[in-house]
Amino acid sequence: MRRDREATVTGALNTLTIEQIRAGLAAGAFSAAEVVEACLARIAERDAQVHAWVAVDADGARAAAGDPRHGGPLQGVPFGVKDVFRTARCPTQMGAEAHAGATHRFDAAAVAMLRAAGGVMLGKTATAEYAGTAPADTCHPGAPMHTPGGSSSGSAAAVADCMVPFALGTQTGGSVIRPAAFCGVVGFKPTFGLYPVDGMKMAAQSFDTVGLFTRTAADAALLHSVFLDTPLAATDGPVRFGLLSTHLDDTVDPSMAAALERAAARLSEAGCPVETVAAPGWLSGLTAHRAVINAFERHRALAPEALEHGHGFRPETQATWEAGRAVSGDAYLAARRAVDDARRAAAALFDGVDVLLTPATPGEAPAGLHSTGDPRLQELWTTLHMPALCLPCDTGPTGLPLSVQLIGPAYADAHLLGAARVAEAALDGRIAETA
Amino acid sequence: MRRDREATVTGALNTLTIEQIRAGLAAGAFSAAEVVEACLARIAERDAQVHAWVAVDADGARAAAGDPRHGGPLQGVPFGVKDVFRTARCPTQMGAEAHAGATHRFDAAAVAMLRAAGGVMLGKTATAEYAGTAPADTCHPGAPMHTPGGSSSGSAAAVADCMVPFALGTQTGGSVIRPAAFCGVVGFKPTFGLYPVDGMKMAAQSFDTVGLFTRTAADAALLHSVFLDTPLAATDGPVRFGLLSTHLDDTVDPSMAAALERAAARLSEAGCPVETVAAPGWLSGLTAHRAVINAFERHRALAPEALEHGHGFRPETQATWEAGRAVSGDAYLAARRAVDDARRAAAALFDGVDVLLTPATPGEAPAGLHSTGDPRLQELWTTLHMPALCLPCDTGPTGLPLSVQLIGPAYADAHLLGAARVAEAALDGRIAETA
Repeated sequence: MRRDREATVTGALNTLTIEQIRAGLAAGAFSAAEVVEACLARIAERDAQVHAWVAVDADGARAAAGDPRHGGPLQGVPFGVKDVFRTARCPTQMGAEAHAGATHRFDAAAVAMLRAAGGVMLGKTATAEYAGTAPADTCHPGAPMHTPGGSSSGSAAAVADCMVPFALGTQTGGSVIRPAAFCGVVGFKPTFGLYPVDGMKMAAQSFDTVGLFTRTAADAALLHSVFLDTPLAATDGPVRFGLLSTHLDDTVDPSMAAALERAAARLSEAGCPVETVAAPGWLSGLTAHRAVINAFERHRALAPEALEHGHGFRPETQATWEAGRAVSGDAYLAARRAVDDARRAAAALFDGVDVLLTPATPGEAPAGLHSTGDPRLQELWTTLHMPALCLPCDTGPTGLPLSVQLIGPAYADAHLLGAARVAEAALDGRIAETA
Repeated sequence: MRRDREATVTGALNTLTIEQIRAGLAAGAFSAAEVVEACLARIAERDAQVHAWVAVDADGARAAAGDPRHGGPLQGVPFGVKDVFRTARCPTQMGAEAHAGATHRFDAAAVAMLRAAGGVMLGKTATAEYAGTAPADTCHPGAPMHTPGGSSSGSAAAVADCMVPFALGTQTGGSVIRPAAFCGVVGFKPTFGLYPVDGMKMAAQSFDTVGLFTRTAADAALLHSVFLDTPLAATDGPVRFGLLSTHLDDTVDPSMAAALERAAARLSEAGCPVETVAAPGWLSGLTAHRAVINAFERHRALAPEALEHGHGFRPETQATWEAGRAVSGDAYLAARRAVDDARRAAAALFDGVDVLLTPATPGEAPAGLHSTGDPRLQELWTTLHMPALCLPCDTGPTGLPLSVQLIGPAYADAHLLGAARVAEAALDGRIAETA
């Protein structure tokens, strides 16, 4: 279930990275229409098993692939969209009965920006109900009885299964990094607020962040430059990595702890200093503060559906809704203040290091489709509004991917993406593939 | 065009405050259906001149007023909704051609919360295009050739003209405080992020805040307790006011400067210490940083409409869109960092004072309907994420309202609302009324 990251344009078109598609189109090696057909064929072949997609707009994608007018940086590049972003060409259902068949006049802003850059939307990918914890039907592409992670389950599985070179997701806790790590692709959650949230269903608005699934860190950097309208950042000099130990270390499986040690050793061998960073005292409080804010805000964001649909939520969503109802306004404000203080203190985590290195998840994708896994290792950085990126670095006991998480200071997204390219080369990371 | 703030339940039902409606309903003095009919009658009588409403759902409001099942704190209280919030029962048009007739399955979360509390939505109020600077058709209720302010023009005018006791608005620059001040009603913009933004069209997501228009500070406090699920805060001891001088002082008309002096004197006489607070050096930079962030984010939030509708924007919106296209990602990130630093420094503004006191606007509502007025005095506090409230305190040369703006530290919304009740009593503020 592995393939070489250096796949060339002679490989199947659905397995190419964005950079490879751009190069191939520029060289006339293939057409955008051929790339789209290869992706549609892969979906047709595999999605009855994987369940990554909830809607595929084959006609719209074919029409867009044949339209040469854009000439933008993503011209002819297909992508998938988590089904919490409104789209004009597909229903937007949010994994929820209450939104079955719901249509909208306009795309969400993030989708429109990608289309304006020439990207070709293939369709909508499966999400946990309202980007929460009630799982989608999606299976792990490499192990059908294991969760792909969530809540952006379909986006992660679609990229990992080579159905599409990149996909949009959202992260409120760990909904980009966790499924990316489980499926063995690159997940990138930028600094809070950098990418537009217009047209997304909000989950917890203090944390909701648009994120990306790609096959390489270079592709994530390319997409970041589209969203931020910045040129790609060059990486200068060796990156200083900080191995952060936290209050969550005892949640980490020995296989993941060993993989992290090997990753640190490989970075060191590649000339990058790796230091140990001790967790500051306030870090352990974030898990509880985040839970308070998350429950309070999710309860409010679901007010429309609760009002019209009564108890139409799935049990996991209903439990979150009830947890939020039980949080007082004063408890919410206290948690907001505490998190603001933590964000101010968090710059000190980077004294002497450029990027923090932690496990992305406690271990491999767990068996069973009833849960999307533990969000605690990812949600710390969502709560702190810091950019985070995961890279596959190893495999676990059952052969599924293990991934490291790289974290940068707020607004240092371009530097984090540069560091990720260095790390990716050093780690010789592999992309999970079932083909 | 004035009436006494102490209007009793013997007044016309459309002129009552939320508190008076609650008391009258509890006492059986009138029914919710009678309040709704009085508001609908006022709209029928006046809106051909004022143009506050873009859609009125009379049937839905009558049905909701007759439905006793809620029993919430807003049971039977009518309200208006700025037409940038999606609603299930009225189209959501955002003052924009591209959204003409657009319908949605669910309300925005803020609307749903008010309805879940028993509130009766009367309809949608006029907004500047996309909550920007292209004006609505709304006139100032007290002077038809003057602007009511914007972008929440219809919400301010509807409350000032006694068509409805309260209304929802949004503030990204000064879009709640400015029209409230011009029209002579209470405007309240809470701390960033406290009220749910789900289902709102985003303008500039770093600043977009749900806000309120009411006739009294007490009504704003009541609505705040609905959104935050907190009991009403008691006000203990004299409030210490700080008169803040800023780089924008020379934009303030002599009539407003004199009104502010009189307001300070009246607060002093009422036993509230009033001190002068010098502006810190960083404050003057905020106007420019805010402009960079605002343009960059509005450009991105309008990506869907730009993609589908080409140049369908009105000229003011088109100018904002082009300004945003010209902002580089690096300039945006620098402005975001600078504003974060300012938010951290801003707590020091409250050393020794509880609440800052400034002019809400440069002066009376200007003549002419081509502009909604100058946002700079209001937008400072939106940028700093601090709660702000305006109170009518005087009249200007042409008899239109002049208002002060009260500002509290982030998260101290309940204390600001308590201080506003003290100030309201001391200032003997009046509510503009055209009846």
